[in-house]
Amino acid sequence: MFSPLVAELIQGLRVLPGVGPKSAQRMALYLLERNRQGAQQLADVLARAMLDVQHCESCRTFSEQSLCQLCASTARDTQLLCVVESPADILAIEQSGSFNGLYFVLGGHLSPIDGIGPHELGIPQLINRLKNKEVTELILATNATVEGEATAHYIRESSKVFGVKVSRIAHGVPLGGELETVDSHTLARALNQRQRYA
Amino acid sequence: MFSPLVAELIQGLRVLPGVGPKSAQRMALYLLERNRQGAQQLADVLARAMLDVQHCESCRTFSEQSLCQLCASTARDTQLLCVVESPADILAIEQSGSFNGLYFVLGGHLSPIDGIGPHELGIPQLINRLKNKEVTELILATNATVEGEATAHYIRESSKVFGVKVSRIAHGVPLGGELETVDSHTLARALNQRQRYA
Ligand SMILES: [Zn+2]
Ligand SMILES: [Zn+2]
Repeated sequence: MFSPLVAELIQGLRVLPGVGPKSAQRMALYLLERNRQGAQQLADVLARAMLDVQHCESCRTFSEQSLCQLCASTARDTQLLCVVESPADILAIEQSGSFNGLYFVLGGHLSPIDGIGPHELGIPQLINRLKNKEVTELILATNATVEGEATAHYIRESSKVFGVKVSRIAHGVPLGGELETVDSHTLARALNQRQRYA
Repeated sequence: MFSPLVAELIQGLRVLPGVGPKSAQRMALYLLERNRQGAQQLADVLARAMLDVQHCESCRTFSEQSLCQLCASTARDTQLLCVVESPADILAIEQSGSFNGLYFVLGGHLSPIDGIGPHELGIPQLINRLKNKEVTELILATNATVEGEATAHYIRESSKVFGVKVSRIAHGVPLGGELETVDSHTLARALNQRQRYA
């Protein structure tokens, strides 16, 4: 017996991943009772972010600028390009403090069954960047999962013609693990011990 | 390394109860990647709800109308008044199908240490409703916790002068339990076996 607007709010909160009916109800009542100002601010930033956040033209991470902060920076080594699955992986690698190059975000991994092929992951755009010869090493930091390995393998094969050095992040990352859940120390070692493909 | 607006979105999501930094990050990326339309709708309903949802003038539950649907209904027994701690408790009791009267929402329980006294719970307003003699039975359905019991005891004492029948919801509700987590069957029995104070 909630009012129509409260019921709509509870329903609206269920777009959030991991939020079921009970959680949504608890969140709605909490915000109405205790933090209307915070909820107003959340409404405001949600609306602005969904409208203004797009993909960086260069690396495809989320950004409200056409070039993200990292791609626009003059302090990064533009010869190193690290390929990751998700924007969250950039954060994890930056926190390891072991990488000063640029990134390329696939936004997933190859998954033919879901209709996700090279085009959906921006791989033609990635390959294009290898043509101008500025990148000397491509570091494949996709997840250490079957799909991540397959995606790394595909990119490795696709980039062979350009004579660029291609390496895979070392398997200090536990097999089957997702990159963003690994601690900084392990991630730093995995980067330092990256193995060049023969 | 998230853009300022994405970082602000992640921070904004942390107003939600039970959402830490990792969950907020996962939610933000999920919405940006998969459900921008749902997120826009959430922003919209959050803004409208925080602005328009107030308290029902009669029972204090949340409502965007001055009188909530139950208080405005002509199908309810206005002689029975059930006192609950939270709007969620109304939903739980309605779902038990064992009550056809009206409600009064305290919005918590007596907690002197947090500065929550009778006034904060609207108890003067509740007492006022007993003066016009329309209510013949007051059912106290506060939680079966120490604080809920103390609050029920206080209301019982305060209403003695009006000669109204006062009952306490039966303890089929597990002791120490919160009302909204109890199943409908138990709650129905608790209502049917309510004990009139001697
Ligand atoms: Zn970028
Ligand atoms: Zn009402």
